[in-house]
Amino acid sequence: MAKPAPVSPLAPESFPALPVIKGVRFAAVEAGVRYQGRTDVMLALLDPGSVMAGVFTRSATRSAPVLDCQAKIGADSDAGAAIIVNSGNSNAFTGKNGVLSTQAVTEATAKACGLPAARVFSSSTGVIGEPLKHDRIIAKLDELNAKLDENGMQAAARAIMTTDTFPKGAMAEIEVGGKTVRIAGIAKGSGMIAPDMATMLVYIFTDAKIARADLQAIVSRLNDKTFNCITVDSDTSTSDTLLMGATGASGVDVTGNAAFEAALSDVMQDLAHQVVKDGEGATKFVTVNVTGAASDADARTHALSIANSPLVKTAIAGEDPNWGRIVMAVGKSGAAADRDTLSISFGDVLVAEKGWVAESYREEAGAALMKKPEITINVDIGIGQGKATVWTCDLTHGYITINADYRS
Amino acid sequence: MAKPAPVSPLAPESFPALPVIKGVRFAAVEAGVRYQGRTDVMLALLDPGSVMAGVFTRSATRSAPVLDCQAKIGADSDAGAAIIVNSGNSNAFTGKNGVLSTQAVTEATAKACGLPAARVFSSSTGVIGEPLKHDRIIAKLDELNAKLDENGMQAAARAIMTTDTFPKGAMAEIEVGGKTVRIAGIAKGSGMIAPDMATMLVYIFTDAKIARADLQAIVSRLNDKTFNCITVDSDTSTSDTLLMGATGASGVDVTGNAAFEAALSDVMQDLAHQVVKDGEGATKFVTVNVTGAASDADARTHALSIANSPLVKTAIAGEDPNWGRIVMAVGKSGAAADRDTLSISFGDVLVAEKGWVAESYREEAGAALMKKPEITINVDIGIGQGKATVWTCDLTHGYITINADYRS
Repeated sequence: MAKPAPVSPLAPESFPALPVIKGVRFAAVEAGVRYQGRTDVMLALLDPGSVMAGVFTRSATRSAPVLDCQAKIGADSDAGAAIIVNSGNSNAFTGKNGVLSTQAVTEATAKACGLPAARVFSSSTGVIGEPLKHDRIIAKLDELNAKLDENGMQAAARAIMTTDTFPKGAMAEIEVGGKTVRIAGIAKGSGMIAPDMATMLVYIFTDAKIARADLQAIVSRLNDKTFNCITVDSDTSTSDTLLMGATGASGVDVTGNAAFEAALSDVMQDLAHQVVKDGEGATKFVTVNVTGAASDADARTHALSIANSPLVKTAIAGEDPNWGRIVMAVGKSGAAADRDTLSISFGDVLVAEKGWVAESYREEAGAALMKKPEITINVDIGIGQGKATVWTCDLTHGYITINADYRS
Repeated sequence: MAKPAPVSPLAPESFPALPVIKGVRFAAVEAGVRYQGRTDVMLALLDPGSVMAGVFTRSATRSAPVLDCQAKIGADSDAGAAIIVNSGNSNAFTGKNGVLSTQAVTEATAKACGLPAARVFSSSTGVIGEPLKHDRIIAKLDELNAKLDENGMQAAARAIMTTDTFPKGAMAEIEVGGKTVRIAGIAKGSGMIAPDMATMLVYIFTDAKIARADLQAIVSRLNDKTFNCITVDSDTSTSDTLLMGATGASGVDVTGNAAFEAALSDVMQDLAHQVVKDGEGATKFVTVNVTGAASDADARTHALSIANSPLVKTAIAGEDPNWGRIVMAVGKSGAAADRDTLSISFGDVLVAEKGWVAESYREEAGAALMKKPEITINVDIGIGQGKATVWTCDLTHGYITINADYRS
């Protein structure tokens, strides 16, 4: 393993103060699954009456824990729930033994927590293709149970890190009829040191009261606008998992409450941005706004083509206002475009319009904008009303160093 | 501009000895379009009776010369033809002025060569978004005409280079009824120094006799198996062009001749491989074979997902037999796959099968294979009969250096 990378230059100044979410407690321990001298297993236990929702990687080579979560997530239950997560080993591409490991962990956790196994959700992140030493996790269940603490969310955020350079948390509060509803979440996802993979894991909790199906609908909808709109290198993990639990402990029903959905959207977007800001080798956080496309789907196709283009990403790394590469990325995306109606701006500086560089554009203005750590690229396709926003980072020597220079 | 990159370690030892193709002559001159002290314009003149075929970039932001070629390529004519190409400026994203520049160059070339303008095909490659100084090209047409030489193909190959580190040529000969039919071609395509783009230009000539529509059908079919199966960084130029001219001077009709199609396939594959071997920063030439997919289209989707994955490409750069990243790339491709039927080998070393690492696999064997300059990745999806092969190179610090470190 390589030595730890320095903290991303795009990291927040500090971990946020997360509020207690009544009805859920956390614990983290050192189980030595792979790493030594750090916590690597976390347990979250939700009280009876909690509802669970989730979204998962669409990879055709999903890991055993993902398949197990997907089988369980749609069921209604009043029994409470547990989430158990280990770092160090992803239990992905581990064949039938992987399925048995997931079963062993979830069944032992169920027993330790007094839950049916159908209410235990697990994730694993880290090295792939190696057997998960699940006995090391199971051996720590009593200790985890004894340490459960409603203030334990930050410790949980640290236990799930792999090559992340900082722990990721976000929160929001809204007032509904004089009562406070709280949302708090943690995430991991960053880089990969061979042969680790950039699994993104997200766990969000609220004390709001809401039906399972309603929560699932909101989470799925918001996921499409947040986590599904970020890209570091276009590669998709076999383990990506987002789980959300609503304990109902606030007593406030948020069914149909737009403020709740907006607050949850903020939390999810904040966590999604933190994942991008911890992208391997990232030195720039880039927002790509596409407007004027034939449809929202076309706008998203253009935006992802720009955000995933190695030529665009290396130009940003080089602080080069290279609008020609953006024209190229729009042209190759496969979505409808017309060279002569395209306009491009960096921040508020109009760079190109009507098929050519803008008359008002001065290279110095573009170059100055590119020196900032956060860059916005606005592209108007000029043929319709479709729009989309995606977020990405630049492609630097740091990415190559992390992913090519070190052997596993 | 950066200083010239050293010649790719994957370059052929020398430029091949190209045969004379009766009925076509070449010239190259220094026109100073952008570069100084080197040739930058080439002219190829084909005798009356020649037929022309071509394939072009599908980019929605195609350059003016590409649009002009596309408008002309489908017409039958006995008037002969000319191909005029400049390097240094791609005349892409240059608005209406770009259209006028292309018109000026093709009309002046037509006049100088005694051809209708509809028989003059042009290409431009180099910086984008800057006006093409077409007067500099037009001023050299008399000199080009005077220098036309049936032995001028290598000089032409050099004149069309931009950031290529070596000129690219390939040839084949077949015997048909005691007569020799010859094919020879040149190509450029490599890297980009901001804001240049990796335009791929290919010009192939034969003295075979064949109807235009038949030649077009063969070229389109072979293009799908050769140039459309290579990828350096998934980015597509706005100027990619392949033109083929058949002079008929051998007197040999090759209509329906399988040997001719096989020979042309070899020439196109050879040139395509040379383009990959000159990929920016490339140190490894990688063949990705996918078999057992649900369809040929699915196999191609998987193969391109592997070949374009930054994680796979950086692992190859690091000589890391990281099969987990190949599993990831198959899983994310969107085409059908089953984790538990997937098998992967590097060369003839079986690495993974039935959802897990192969029992016979030893890391040393994989690591030894990865040290070679040419690497083959074989992936059997295990669910059908579909197959595809694509070629790519690794992703190295060299790529970042070429594309990020230097400002335009």
